[in-house]
Amino acid sequence: MPSLILVRHGQSQWNLENRFTGWWDVDLTEKGVAEATAAGELLAEKGLLPTIAFTSLQKRAIKTLHLALEACGRLWIPEFKDWRLNERHYGGLTGLDKAATAALHGDEQVKIWRRSFDIPPPPLAAGGEFDLAADPRYAGIAIPSTESLKLTIERVLPYWEATIRPQLAAGQTVIVAAHGNSLRALVKHLSNISDADITDLEIPTGQPIIYDFDDALVPGERHYLKDR
Amino acid sequence: MPSLILVRHGQSQWNLENRFTGWWDVDLTEKGVAEATAAGELLAEKGLLPTIAFTSLQKRAIKTLHLALEACGRLWIPEFKDWRLNERHYGGLTGLDKAATAALHGDEQVKIWRRSFDIPPPPLAAGGEFDLAADPRYAGIAIPSTESLKLTIERVLPYWEATIRPQLAAGQTVIVAAHGNSLRALVKHLSNISDADITDLEIPTGQPIIYDFDDALVPGERHYLKDR
Repeated sequence: MPSLILVRHGQSQWNLENRFTGWWDVDLTEKGVAEATAAGELLAEKGLLPTIAFTSLQKRAIKTLHLALEACGRLWIPEFKDWRLNERHYGGLTGLDKAATAALHGDEQVKIWRRSFDIPPPPLAAGGEFDLAADPRYAGIAIPSTESLKLTIERVLPYWEATIRPQLAAGQTVIVAAHGNSLRALVKHLSNISDADITDLEIPTGQPIIYDFDDALVPGERHYLKDR
Repeated sequence: MPSLILVRHGQSQWNLENRFTGWWDVDLTEKGVAEATAAGELLAEKGLLPTIAFTSLQKRAIKTLHLALEACGRLWIPEFKDWRLNERHYGGLTGLDKAATAALHGDEQVKIWRRSFDIPPPPLAAGGEFDLAADPRYAGIAIPSTESLKLTIERVLPYWEATIRPQLAAGQTVIVAAHGNSLRALVKHLSNISDADITDLEIPTGQPIIYDFDDALVPGERHYLKDR
Protein backbone atom coordinates (compact mmCIF):
# COMPACT_ATOMS: atom_id res chain seq x y z
CA MET A 1 0.00 0.00 0.00
CA PRO A 2 1.61 3.29 -1.00
CA SER A 3 2.07 5.80 1.80
CA LEU A 4 2.74 9.51 1.90
CA ILE A 5 4.77 11.02 4.73
CA LEU A 6 4.53 14.80 5.20
CA VAL A 7 7.07 16.50 7.47
CA ARG A 8 7.13 20.21 8.21
CA HIS A 9 10.69 21.43 8.81
CA GLY A 10 11.88 21.73 12.41
CA GLN A 11 12.03 25.08 14.17
CA SER A 12 13.89 27.76 12.22
CA GLN A 13 15.65 30.81 13.59
CA TRP A 14 12.79 33.03 12.47
CA ASN A 15 10.12 30.67 13.84
CA LEU A 16 11.90 31.24 17.13
CA GLU A 17 12.02 35.02 16.63
CA ASN A 18 8.42 35.08 15.41
CA ARG A 19 9.30 36.75 12.11
CA PHE A 20 7.58 36.22 8.76
CA THR A 21 9.97 34.07 6.73
CA GLY A 22 8.34 32.99 3.49
CA TRP A 23 10.97 32.49 0.82
CA TRP A 24 13.86 33.86 2.88
CA ASP A 25 16.38 31.07 3.45
CA VAL A 26 16.57 30.82 7.22
CA ASP A 27 18.44 27.96 8.92
CA LEU A 28 17.17 25.49 11.53
CA THR A 29 17.78 26.13 15.22
CA GLU A 30 19.32 23.42 17.42
CA LYS A 31 15.80 22.52 18.45
CA GLY A 32 14.84 22.29 14.77
CA VAL A 33 17.75 19.93 14.12
CA ALA A 34 16.63 17.73 17.03
CA GLU A 35 13.03 17.72 15.75
CA ALA A 36 14.16 16.60 12.30
CA THR A 37 16.29 13.79 13.71
CA ALA A 38 13.43 12.69 15.97
CA ALA A 39 11.11 12.55 12.94
CA GLY A 40 13.52 10.15 11.24
CA GLU A 41 13.89 8.05 14.38
CA LEU A 42 10.12 7.74 14.53
CA LEU A 43 10.02 6.56 10.90
CA ALA A 44 12.60 3.88 11.78
CA GLU A 45 10.77 2.86 14.97
CA LYS A 46 7.45 2.51 13.15
CA GLY A 47 9.09 0.77 10.20
CA LEU A 48 7.74 3.30 7.69
CA LEU A 49 10.78 3.81 5.50
CA PRO A 50 10.57 6.26 2.58
CA THR A 51 11.77 5.15 -0.84
CA ILE A 52 11.72 8.56 -2.58
CA ALA A 53 11.92 12.13 -1.27
CA PHE A 54 10.69 15.57 -2.29
CA THR A 55 11.56 18.90 -0.74
CA SER A 56 11.70 22.63 -1.47
CA LEU A 57 14.65 24.82 -2.44
CA GLN A 58 14.91 26.13 1.12
CA LYS A 59 17.56 24.84 3.47
CA ARG A 60 15.34 24.48 6.53
CA ALA A 61 13.31 21.87 4.62
CA ILE A 62 16.29 20.28 2.84
CA LYS A 63 18.21 19.89 6.09
CA THR A 64 15.12 18.51 7.82
CA LEU A 65 14.88 15.93 5.06
CA HIS A 66 18.56 14.99 5.27
CA LEU A 67 18.52 14.68 9.05
CA ALA A 68 15.35 12.59 9.02
CA LEU A 69 16.66 10.33 6.25
CA GLU A 70 19.94 9.85 8.05
CA ALA A 71 18.14 8.92 11.27
CA CYS A 72 16.13 6.21 9.50
CA GLY A 73 19.04 4.92 7.38
CA ARG A 74 17.65 6.21 4.09
CA LEU A 75 20.08 8.92 2.98
CA TRP A 76 20.55 6.93 -0.24
CA ILE A 77 17.00 7.30 -1.65
CA PRO A 78 16.40 9.59 -4.65
CA GLU A 79 15.66 13.18 -3.70
CA PHE A 80 14.03 15.95 -5.72
CA LYS A 81 13.90 19.64 -4.86
CA ASP A 82 11.45 22.09 -6.35
CA TRP A 83 10.47 25.70 -5.69
CA ARG A 84 6.81 24.72 -5.88
CA LEU A 85 7.19 23.12 -2.44
CA ASN A 86 8.57 26.38 -1.01
CA GLU A 87 6.82 28.17 1.83
CA ARG A 88 4.13 30.72 0.96
CA HIS A 89 5.82 33.98 -0.07
CA TYR A 90 4.95 36.56 2.59
CA GLY A 91 5.60 39.56 0.35
CA GLY A 92 6.29 42.82 2.16
CA LEU A 93 5.94 41.12 5.54
CA THR A 94 9.14 39.11 4.98
CA GLY A 95 11.58 39.71 7.82
CA LEU A 96 9.11 41.55 10.06
CA ASP A 97 8.25 40.25 13.51
CA LYS A 98 4.70 40.29 14.79
CA ALA A 99 5.14 43.46 16.81
CA ALA A 100 6.68 45.41 13.93
CA THR A 101 3.98 44.20 11.56
CA ALA A 102 1.18 45.18 13.93
CA ALA A 103 2.78 48.59 14.47
CA LEU A 104 3.01 49.12 10.70
CA HIS A 105 -0.32 47.72 9.59
CA GLY A 106 -2.50 47.23 12.66
CA ASP A 107 -3.52 43.99 14.42
CA GLU A 108 -6.70 43.50 12.42
CA GLN A 109 -4.95 43.76 9.06
CA VAL A 110 -2.23 41.34 10.15
CA LYS A 111 -4.86 38.83 11.24
CA ILE A 112 -6.46 39.09 7.79
CA TRP A 113 -3.18 38.42 6.00
CA ARG A 114 -2.29 35.50 8.26
CA ARG A 115 -5.66 33.85 8.22
CA SER A 116 -7.47 34.75 5.02
CA PHE A 117 -7.50 32.22 2.21
CA ASP A 118 -7.04 34.51 -0.74
CA ILE A 119 -5.81 37.94 0.39
CA PRO A 120 -2.06 38.22 -0.13
CA PRO A 121 0.07 40.61 1.93
CA PRO A 122 1.44 43.69 0.13
CA PRO A 123 4.13 42.79 -2.41
CA LEU A 124 7.78 42.71 -1.47
CA ALA A 125 9.54 45.88 -2.62
CA ALA A 126 11.97 45.19 -5.48
CA GLY A 127 15.63 45.84 -4.72
CA GLY A 128 15.19 45.62 -0.95
CA GLU A 129 17.00 43.44 1.57
CA PHE A 130 14.81 40.40 0.92
CA ASP A 131 14.58 40.63 -2.87
CA LEU A 132 15.49 37.25 -4.38
CA ALA A 133 15.73 38.39 -8.01
CA ALA A 134 19.51 37.82 -8.04
CA ASP A 135 19.38 34.45 -6.22
CA PRO A 136 20.63 31.84 -8.72
CA ARG A 137 18.39 29.14 -7.25
CA TYR A 138 15.39 30.96 -8.71
CA ALA A 139 16.90 31.65 -12.13
CA GLY A 140 14.23 31.04 -14.77
CA ILE A 141 11.40 31.07 -12.22
CA ALA A 142 8.78 33.83 -12.07
CA ILE A 143 9.42 34.64 -8.40
CA PRO A 144 6.19 35.82 -6.78
CA SER A 145 6.25 39.18 -4.99
CA THR A 146 3.63 37.91 -2.51
CA GLU A 147 1.27 34.94 -2.12
CA SER A 148 -2.01 34.12 -0.46
CA LEU A 149 -2.61 30.52 0.63
CA LYS A 150 -4.78 30.22 -2.49
CA LEU A 151 -1.87 31.25 -4.73
CA THR A 152 0.40 28.84 -2.85
CA ILE A 153 -2.01 25.99 -3.52
CA GLU A 154 -2.10 26.95 -7.20
CA ARG A 155 1.58 26.11 -7.61
CA VAL A 156 1.80 23.19 -5.15
CA LEU A 157 -1.03 21.11 -6.62
CA PRO A 158 0.23 20.97 -10.24
CA TYR A 159 3.55 19.68 -8.87
CA TRP A 160 1.70 17.15 -6.72
CA GLU A 161 -0.29 15.90 -9.70
CA ALA A 162 2.54 15.83 -12.21
CA THR A 163 5.44 14.66 -10.08
CA ILE A 164 4.63 13.34 -6.59
CA ARG A 165 1.35 11.46 -7.13
CA PRO A 166 2.78 9.31 -9.97
CA GLN A 167 5.40 8.00 -7.53
CA LEU A 168 2.64 6.87 -5.16
CA ALA A 169 0.89 5.29 -8.13
CA ALA A 170 4.13 3.38 -8.76
CA GLY A 171 3.97 2.02 -5.21
CA GLN A 172 6.62 4.20 -3.61
CA THR A 173 6.68 5.34 0.00
CA VAL A 174 6.98 9.09 -0.53
CA ILE A 175 8.34 11.61 1.97
CA VAL A 176 7.71 15.33 1.43
CA ALA A 177 9.74 17.63 3.70
CA ALA A 178 8.33 21.11 3.28
CA HIS A 179 6.66 24.09 4.96
CA GLY A 180 3.54 25.03 6.89
CA ASN A 181 1.68 26.38 3.89
CA SER A 182 2.93 24.12 1.12
CA LEU A 183 1.91 21.19 3.33
CA ARG A 184 -1.44 22.86 4.08
CA ALA A 185 -1.98 22.88 0.33
CA LEU A 186 -1.50 19.11 0.17
CA VAL A 187 -3.57 18.39 3.29
CA LYS A 188 -6.42 20.59 2.02
CA HIS A 189 -6.47 18.63 -1.22
CA LEU A 190 -6.09 15.15 0.28
CA SER A 191 -8.45 15.62 3.24
CA ASN A 192 -10.91 17.76 1.28
CA ILE A 193 -10.85 20.70 3.70
CA SER A 194 -12.81 23.87 2.90
CA ASP A 195 -11.23 27.24 2.08
CA ALA A 196 -12.65 28.57 5.33
CA ASP A 197 -11.29 25.79 7.53
CA ILE A 198 -7.82 25.27 6.06
CA THR A 199 -6.28 28.49 7.37
CA ASP A 200 -6.87 27.36 10.96
CA LEU A 201 -5.28 23.97 10.47
CA GLU A 202 -1.89 23.87 12.16
CA ILE A 203 0.86 21.65 10.77
CA PRO A 204 3.23 20.92 13.67
CA THR A 205 7.00 21.04 13.04
CA GLY A 206 8.86 17.74 12.77
CA GLN A 207 5.75 15.61 13.32
CA PRO A 208 5.27 13.11 10.46
CA ILE A 209 1.73 13.14 9.02
CA ILE A 210 0.71 9.98 7.18
CA TYR A 211 -1.73 9.17 4.39
CA ASP A 212 -2.14 5.59 3.23
CA PHE A 213 -3.57 5.16 -0.26
CA ASP A 214 -5.73 2.34 -1.60
CA ASP A 215 -5.27 0.65 -4.96
CA ALA A 216 -7.34 3.34 -6.68
CA LEU A 217 -4.96 5.89 -5.08
CA VAL A 218 -7.70 7.26 -2.82
CA PRO A 219 -6.13 8.57 0.39
CA GLY A 220 -7.36 7.27 3.75
CA GLU A 221 -7.69 9.32 6.93
CA ARG A 222 -4.79 11.57 7.79
CA HIS A 223 -3.02 10.70 11.01
CA TYR A 224 0.14 11.40 12.94
CA LEU A 225 2.71 8.64 12.74
CA LYS A 226 3.28 8.90 16.50
CA ASP A 227 -0.31 7.70 17.05
CA ARG A 228 0.05 4.59 14.92
CA MET B 1 33.61 27.27 -19.15
CA PRO B 2 32.23 24.08 -17.60
CA SER B 3 34.12 22.76 -14.58
CA LEU B 4 34.22 19.43 -12.79
CA ILE B 5 34.84 19.27 -9.05
CA LEU B 6 35.85 15.89 -7.61
CA VAL B 7 35.72 15.44 -3.84
CA ARG B 8 36.69 12.25 -2.03
CA HIS B 9 34.66 11.80 1.16
CA GLY B 10 36.23 12.92 4.42
CA GLN B 11 37.76 10.43 6.84
CA SER B 12 35.46 7.53 7.70
CA GLN B 13 35.51 5.40 10.83
CA TRP B 14 37.16 2.56 8.93
CA ASN B 15 39.68 4.86 7.24
CA LEU B 16 40.67 5.71 10.81
CA GLU B 17 40.76 2.02 11.85
CA ASN B 18 42.60 1.07 8.65
CA ARG B 19 39.99 -1.50 7.64
CA PHE B 20 38.93 -2.38 4.10
CA THR B 21 35.53 -0.75 3.62
CA GLY B 22 34.42 -1.06 0.00
CA TRP B 23 30.62 -1.16 -0.16
CA TRP B 24 30.09 -1.34 3.60
CA ASP B 25 28.22 1.80 4.70
CA VAL B 26 30.57 3.34 7.25
CA ASP B 27 29.97 6.84 8.63
CA LEU B 28 32.29 9.85 8.67
CA THR B 29 34.40 10.59 11.73
CA GLU B 30 34.37 14.07 13.29
CA LYS B 31 37.52 14.78 11.31
CA GLY B 32 35.71 13.61 8.17
CA VAL B 33 32.83 15.99 8.87
CA ALA B 34 35.29 18.86 9.30
CA GLU B 35 37.08 17.95 6.05
CA ALA B 36 33.79 17.96 4.13
CA THR B 37 32.79 21.34 5.52
CA ALA B 38 36.24 22.74 4.74
CA ALA B 39 35.88 21.52 1.14
CA GLY B 40 32.65 23.52 0.81
CA GLU B 41 34.20 26.57 2.41
CA LEU B 42 37.02 26.41 -0.11
CA LEU B 43 34.51 26.26 -2.99
CA ALA B 44 32.83 29.39 -1.60
CA GLU B 45 36.16 31.18 -1.05
CA LYS B 46 37.33 30.43 -4.59
CA GLY B 47 33.92 31.27 -6.05
CA LEU B 48 33.58 27.88 -7.74
CA LEU B 49 29.95 27.06 -6.99
CA PRO B 50 28.49 23.78 -8.21
CA THR B 51 25.18 23.78 -10.07
CA ILE B 52 24.52 20.01 -10.09
CA ALA B 53 25.75 17.17 -7.86
CA PHE B 54 26.44 13.46 -8.19
CA THR B 55 27.30 11.01 -5.45
CA SER B 56 27.23 7.32 -4.56
CA LEU B 57 24.71 5.35 -2.48
CA GLN B 58 27.08 5.39 0.50
CA LYS B 59 26.53 7.76 3.38
CA ARG B 60 30.15 8.82 3.79
CA ALA B 61 30.00 10.31 0.29
CA ILE B 62 26.41 11.60 0.55
CA LYS B 63 27.13 13.35 3.85
CA THR B 64 30.35 14.79 2.47
CA LEU B 65 28.33 16.21 -0.40
CA HIS B 66 25.65 17.67 1.87
CA LEU B 67 28.16 19.23 4.26
CA ALA B 68 30.17 20.73 1.39
CA LEU B 69 27.05 22.07 -0.35
CA GLU B 70 25.78 23.59 2.88
CA ALA B 71 29.12 25.28 3.49
CA CYS B 72 29.04 26.93 0.05
CA GLY B 73 25.32 27.81 0.15
CA ARG B 74 24.32 25.30 -2.53
CA LEU B 75 22.16 22.73 -0.70
CA TRP B 76 19.41 23.53 -3.22
CA ILE B 77 21.11 22.23 -6.36
CA PRO B 78 19.87 19.00 -7.98
CA GLU B 79 21.52 15.88 -6.62
CA PHE B 80 21.76 12.40 -8.11
CA LYS B 81 22.93 9.25 -6.35
CA ASP B 82 24.06 6.11 -8.12
CA TRP B 83 25.74 2.85 -7.11
CA ARG B 84 28.14 3.20 -10.04
CA LEU B 85 29.95 5.91 -8.05
CA ASN B 86 30.34 3.57 -5.06
CA GLU B 87 33.75 2.63 -3.74
CA ARG B 88 35.50 -0.38 -5.23
CA HIS B 89 34.03 -3.56 -3.67
CA TYR B 90 36.79 -5.16 -1.62
CA GLY B 91 35.21 -8.61 -1.64
CA GLY B 92 36.38 -10.94 1.12
CA LEU B 93 38.67 -8.26 2.55
CA THR B 94 35.68 -6.15 3.62
CA GLY B 95 35.87 -5.39 7.34
CA LEU B 96 39.43 -6.68 7.80
CA ASP B 97 42.17 -4.40 9.04
CA LYS B 98 45.62 -4.50 7.51
CA ALA B 99 47.11 -6.69 10.23
CA ALA B 100 44.30 -9.27 10.03
CA THR B 101 44.55 -9.32 6.25
CA ALA B 102 48.31 -9.82 6.30
CA ALA B 103 47.97 -12.59 8.88
CA LEU B 104 45.35 -14.34 6.74
CA HIS B 105 46.84 -13.87 3.30
CA GLY B 106 50.45 -12.68 3.69
CA ASP B 107 51.91 -9.22 3.06
CA GLU B 108 52.82 -9.86 -0.55
CA GLN B 109 49.34 -11.02 -1.51
CA VAL B 110 47.74 -8.00 0.20
CA LYS B 111 50.05 -5.65 -1.69
CA ILE B 112 48.97 -7.32 -4.95
CA TRP B 113 45.27 -6.84 -4.18
CA ARG B 114 45.73 -3.25 -3.09
CA ARG B 115 47.94 -2.17 -5.93
CA SER B 116 47.25 -4.35 -8.95
CA PHE B 117 45.05 -2.95 -11.68
CA ASP B 118 43.07 -6.04 -12.55
CA ILE B 119 43.40 -8.69 -9.80
CA PRO B 120 40.34 -8.59 -7.55
CA PRO B 121 40.47 -9.82 -3.93
CA PRO B 122 38.70 -13.11 -3.15
CA PRO B 123 34.91 -12.77 -3.36
CA LEU B 124 32.84 -11.88 -0.30
CA ALA B 125 31.23 -14.99 1.17
CA ALA B 126 27.45 -14.98 0.67
CA GLY B 127 25.37 -14.82 3.83
CA GLY B 128 28.17 -13.39 5.96
CA GLU B 129 28.25 -10.26 8.10
CA PHE B 130 29.00 -7.97 5.18
CA ASP B 131 26.65 -9.50 2.59
CA LEU B 132 24.51 -6.75 1.04
CA ALA B 133 22.06 -9.01 -0.81
CA ALA B 134 19.20 -7.98 1.50
CA ASP B 135 20.04 -4.24 1.48
CA PRO B 136 17.11 -2.49 -0.26
CA ARG B 137 19.36 0.21 -1.68
CA TYR B 138 20.84 -2.39 -4.03
CA ALA B 139 17.56 -3.99 -5.06
CA GLY B 140 17.65 -4.70 -8.79
CA ILE B 141 21.43 -4.22 -8.97
CA ALA B 142 23.81 -7.11 -9.68
CA ILE B 143 25.91 -6.53 -6.55
CA PRO B 144 29.52 -7.52 -7.25
CA SER B 145 31.13 -10.00 -4.88
CA THR B 146 34.53 -8.34 -5.41
CA GLU B 147 36.10 -5.78 -7.74
CA SER B 148 39.52 -4.90 -9.11
CA LEU B 149 40.18 -1.26 -10.03
CA LYS B 150 39.64 -2.35 -13.63
CA LEU B 151 36.17 -3.66 -12.82
CA THR B 152 35.41 -0.47 -10.89
CA ILE B 153 36.34 1.62 -13.91
CA GLU B 154 34.09 -0.53 -16.09
CA ARG B 155 31.01 0.60 -14.17
CA VAL B 156 32.08 4.19 -13.41
CA LEU B 157 32.87 5.22 -17.00
CA PRO B 158 29.51 4.30 -18.57
CA TYR B 159 27.82 6.43 -15.89
CA TRP B 160 30.26 9.25 -16.58
CA GLU B 161 29.56 9.12 -20.31
CA ALA B 162 25.80 8.73 -20.10
CA THR B 163 24.95 10.94 -17.15
CA ILE B 164 27.69 13.22 -15.84
CA ARG B 165 29.47 14.35 -19.01
CA PRO B 166 26.23 15.59 -20.69
CA GLN B 167 25.77 17.98 -17.76
CA LEU B 168 29.21 19.47 -18.42
CA ALA B 169 28.30 19.69 -22.11
CA ALA B 170 25.25 21.70 -21.01
CA GLY B 171 27.53 24.16 -19.22
CA GLN B 172 26.96 23.02 -15.66
CA THR B 173 29.50 23.19 -12.86
CA VAL B 174 29.44 19.58 -11.72
CA ILE B 175 30.46 18.26 -8.30
CA VAL B 176 31.07 14.55 -7.80
CA ALA B 177 31.41 13.46 -4.16
CA ALA B 178 32.64 9.89 -4.18
CA HIS B 179 35.38 7.47 -3.16
CA GLY B 180 39.10 6.81 -3.64
CA ASN B 181 38.64 4.28 -6.41
CA SER B 182 35.56 5.61 -8.20
CA LEU B 183 37.39 8.95 -8.41
CA ARG B 184 40.58 7.20 -9.58
CA ALA B 185 38.47 5.82 -12.41
CA LEU B 186 37.49 9.34 -13.49
CA VAL B 187 40.99 10.79 -13.06
CA LYS B 188 42.52 7.91 -15.06
CA HIS B 189 40.13 8.63 -17.89
CA LEU B 190 40.36 12.43 -17.85
CA SER B 191 44.13 12.67 -17.30
CA ASN B 192 44.92 9.68 -19.50
CA ILE B 193 46.90 7.79 -16.86
CA SER B 194 48.23 4.30 -17.63
CA ASP B 195 47.00 1.11 -15.97
CA ALA B 196 50.39 0.78 -14.30
CA ASP B 197 50.46 4.31 -12.89
CA ILE B 198 46.89 4.76 -11.73
CA THR B 199 47.10 2.43 -8.73
CA ASP B 200 49.77 4.62 -7.14
CA LEU B 201 47.80 7.83 -7.56
CA GLU B 202 46.45 8.98 -4.20
CA ILE B 203 43.19 10.93 -4.04
CA PRO B 204 43.30 12.92 -0.79
CA THR B 205 40.15 13.10 1.35
CA GLY B 206 38.13 16.33 1.29
CA GLN B 207 40.47 18.08 -1.15
CA PRO B 208 38.57 19.36 -4.22
CA ILE B 209 40.22 18.37 -7.52
CA ILE B 210 39.28 20.53 -10.50
CA TYR B 211 39.10 19.99 -14.25
CA ASP B 212 38.11 22.86 -16.52
CA PHE B 213 36.78 21.89 -19.93
CA ASP B 214 37.07 23.75 -23.22
CA ASP B 215 34.26 24.23 -25.72
CA ALA B 216 34.99 20.85 -27.31
CA LEU B 217 34.68 19.34 -23.81
CA VAL B 218 38.37 18.47 -23.66
CA PRO B 219 39.56 18.58 -20.04
CA GLY B 220 42.51 20.79 -19.09
CA GLU B 221 45.17 19.93 -16.51
CA ARG B 222 43.94 18.53 -13.22
CA HIS B 223 44.69 20.67 -10.20
CA TYR B 224 43.76 21.11 -6.58
CA LEU B 225 41.35 23.94 -5.94
CA LYS B 226 43.50 25.06 -2.97
CA ASP B 227 46.31 25.89 -5.43
CA ARG B 228 44.20 28.09 -7.64
